[in-house]
This record gives sequence, structure tokens and C-alpha cells, in this order.
Amino acid sequence: MKTISENRCFGGVQGVYSHHSDACACDMTFGLFLPAEARDGPVPVLWYLSGLTCTHENAMVKAGAQGWAAEQGIALIFPDTSPRGDDVADDEAYDLGQGAGFYVNATQAPWAPHFRMWDYVAEELPQLAFDTFPLERERQAITGHSMGGHGALTLAMNLPDRYRSASAFAPIAHPSASDWGRKQLAAYLGADQASWAPHDATLRMRETGFDRPLLIDQGTDDPFLDLLQPEALAEAMVSARAPGTLRMQKGYDHSYFFVATFMEDHVAFHAEALYA
Amino acid sequence: MKTISENRCFGGVQGVYSHHSDACACDMTFGLFLPAEARDGPVPVLWYLSGLTCTHENAMVKAGAQGWAAEQGIALIFPDTSPRGDDVADDEAYDLGQGAGFYVNATQAPWAPHFRMWDYVAEELPQLAFDTFPLERERQAITGHSMGGHGALTLAMNLPDRYRSASAFAPIAHPSASDWGRKQLAAYLGADQASWAPHDATLRMRETGFDRPLLIDQGTDDPFLDLLQPEALAEAMVSARAPGTLRMQKGYDHSYFFVATFMEDHVAFHAEALYA
Repeated sequence: MKTISENRCFGGVQGVYSHHSDACACDMTFGLFLPAEARDGPVPVLWYLSGLTCTHENAMVKAGAQGWAAEQGIALIFPDTSPRGDDVADDEAYDLGQGAGFYVNATQAPWAPHFRMWDYVAEELPQLAFDTFPLERERQAITGHSMGGHGALTLAMNLPDRYRSASAFAPIAHPSASDWGRKQLAAYLGADQASWAPHDATLRMRETGFDRPLLIDQGTDDPFLDLLQPEALAEAMVSARAPGTLRMQKGYDHSYFFVATFMEDHVAFHAEALYA
Repeated sequence: MKTISENRCFGGVQGVYSHHSDACACDMTFGLFLPAEARDGPVPVLWYLSGLTCTHENAMVKAGAQGWAAEQGIALIFPDTSPRGDDVADDEAYDLGQGAGFYVNATQAPWAPHFRMWDYVAEELPQLAFDTFPLERERQAITGHSMGGHGALTLAMNLPDRYRSASAFAPIAHPSASDWGRKQLAAYLGADQASWAPHDATLRMRETGFDRPLLIDQGTDDPFLDLLQPEALAEAMVSARAPGTLRMQKGYDHSYFFVATFMEDHVAFHAEALYA
């Protein structure tokens, strides 16, 4: 593992690290914020998964999460959104290929050799992070924005014992019924939609419910609402009698200004579960 | 108007008053909590509409609202849920007739002569209250529980300039599709379902959206969930891109223990809108 940078930040350290990933068969870069408390021992960790076109860096510099995490003594991990590199398949569209991994393990050509973001975020990066940094494996939570909200929800729902709480900002809530999803799931997983189902938060919610604390924020003026389809997840959550809070935030759009506005609430929400 | 009782309560006064109602053509009783601030001038007011079988008294003694209202300097009004008296039509069922007015103006026999709860809560009681007590007509908000949640939502949606904010505890969210609604709306309003539509929060939301602050709490263990149908309102709210917060509260049921648990949040939510 290589240290790209480490900066003092809210009394702790914002680091950026790269390493060879076996899952993605390429080098991967991630951001990690460690609060001051990490100098004395392991701290809880909140995963933040980013959206389309993002790297590990966007949320790290624009989501305003470190101050709130410092206040709560919580670490933040910011993984990248896909494998990267000249040898890695890509597409001219912004929403397929590099920067658009959708947090699945691709089974189809040309994506299968590198696009294994599920394994990377669920297995390989946690292993590396817990082996290397003072993080509490038993106290993990997950959040994300847009495609990263999709990732956070589907990871949490498929690994119900892993994360103590889950939240999302404007998640892609029903990808198997959206142009943000159908194209990518077909490309990465193939035409058989049975393989898509675990990667659709609405379908997972309908199928199994979700019993962990859940918080979803969505702006009413988000230009991508027709692609995000939060109404499907809302209906599914309530029909499943699943605990959770859904907030339609008046006037907010899809940007990091929206994410930053409600980050304090999300970090406090996760802190409550992480320290329970 | 006759004073039934007045008790010192959280530094203010919890009163119970009766008066002849022209709308309901009978005597009606209501509760009013005035905070200490009302001694110095008009205060904002939060309407609380109660559920099936309740009178003005249930929430007044069981919802734990006065302490939070006192902290915010807000008055509370607790209307009755129907006309009352030996001359007033009734039904043996707990969910029709006295104690079950559903906040509509009945047009059908035998209900039409007295069951005009819409006019009573929307017009006559406000007129009386604003003429008699130090209340700010320009600062009103509304909440309610179960059938009263239905009343609060439909009053707020049909009178969008009246209430600065609306909330509900386990509201009957889609009465025209529920056994808590179809029977009563048919009895009071007749078979023409066009007359029901204004009295169905889900249909109103679909039709017009709702642009005021909105907060809905629903227990996941509510035994009446299949009658309340909050999933329909959730889907409608998000599809309408309406601002609002919906919380599925894990393990809570339909009782006043549920209402009391979240009353602090609701009063604070309304206070923010009332003092904005």
C-alpha cells in the first residue's frame, strides 16, 4: 500500500492511499479520514460510496463529512467508483465503465476481468483497511450518494449483519426499472434479470425488508428524480413495514451542496447506531 | 360558551369548554391548552385531531403534548371527533356515527343533520376560538392521530393557505381504498366516490401535491397498518416530489404510547414553521 497524501484535518488525518487490488486486477485509490481518537485505539467506520463519474476524491473534498465525523470520533472511507487504467475496459458514455462500476461483480465481456466492485468494497478493501488502520470491524455503517446510494443500500441489504445502519443521499433506488441501471446491469451482469435483483434496493426491500436503521434524503428539485425512482423504494419500505426515515427535502437538487447540507444529520444518525 | 374546567398545566392553563354548535346542531366540547405566554398576547396554535372512539379528552390527557407546547409557547386545541347526544344519529359499530365523524360534512340520511365535522373544525370552532382566546389566526398548524391524522392531512391539503405545517401519527392515509373509510365515506357522503376524493390524503397528494412542511410517523408494529395504508401516501408524496418526512418507527404500535413518544418531535417541527 502506498501513501499518496496525508493532511491534518479536524484534529485527525485525511489520507489518500493506493494499493494493488486483486478483485479489480488494477491499482485502486481510496480516501480515509481518521479522527483524533484513532491515535488511542480503533474507531468505528462509516463507508461513503460515491456516484457516477466520481473518484475517491469528490466526497472527500466536497461532502463536508470530516468535521461531523471528527465530532463523533468516527472514521470515513471513500472508495473509488470503479477500476481504472489504460488496460481497463471503458465506454464513451459517462454512465458505463470507468467511474460507473455500480458496485457489482461483472460477469460479461469486456467488463468481467476488472469490474468487481462488489468484491472490492465488500471484501478486499475492508480486509486491507482493518489490517492496516485502527478501525473497529464490529462498528461499521454505510452511506452513499446517487449510484453510491444504490451501492450503500444494496450492500447493507445483502449483508444485513455487516453494517449497523445505512443511509443514502438521492440513491438510484430501483435500477432494474431505470435507465440508470438497466443499461449497466445488462452490460455487467447480462440479460438475465434474476442476477440484477440483489442489486436493486427496491426489489431487495420487497423481498426481504430491512431491519436496520435507515435514513434516505432526496431533494424535491433533483433533475434526476425520474431516474432515481425513490417513490418505488418508499412504497416498498412502508409496505414491508421496515423501519426507516425518508425525507423529501424541498428545493434541493442532486449536487454535493445537497449532500453537504444534510451530512451532519447522516453522521449523527450513524453515530447513534455505531455507539448503541 | 361554558367553562367545564380549567387546570394549571406547565405554567399555562388546560381548559375544557362547551358551546352550542350551529354546524353540528348540538352542544360540542373541546379542550384548549394556553401556554403562559398567552397572558401577554396572542400565541400560535396547533390543532390536534383525534381518532376513532376518542372525545376531546383522550389526547389532552394521554398525548403528553402540553409540556412541549409550553416550551414553545404554542396553544393546543383538541376538538371532539363527532357530534354527540341522544338526538344525534349513531351506529352500533365503533367506527361509524358518534366518535367517528371522519372530518366530513355528511350529506346522507341519517347523518346529514349533525355530522358536519368539516365545517365545525375548519370554520366554526376556529371562529369561536379566535374570537374568545388570545390565538394568532396567522400562525396555525395541524396534527392528528389515526382518523385524526386523516383529518389533519385532508384539512391541510384542502386549505393550503391555512396551516403553516401539517403532521400526522399513523394517519388513515387512503380511506377511499380501506375499510377504515369506504364504509364511512359511503354512509356520510353517498356512493359517488368523486365526493370522497377531497377526503383522501393519498388522492389529494396525487392530484395537487402539498408544498407545506409535512411530517408523518408510523409504527412498524401497528396492528392497523393494512387499514391505514401509509405505503400509498408514501408513494404519492414521493411521486408528487412533495417535501415531507415519513418515518417508520420500529416496534411502535397504534397507541397513545406511540403518539406520546414522538410528540416532542412533532411540536418542535410545527414550532419551526409557526415561528418562521
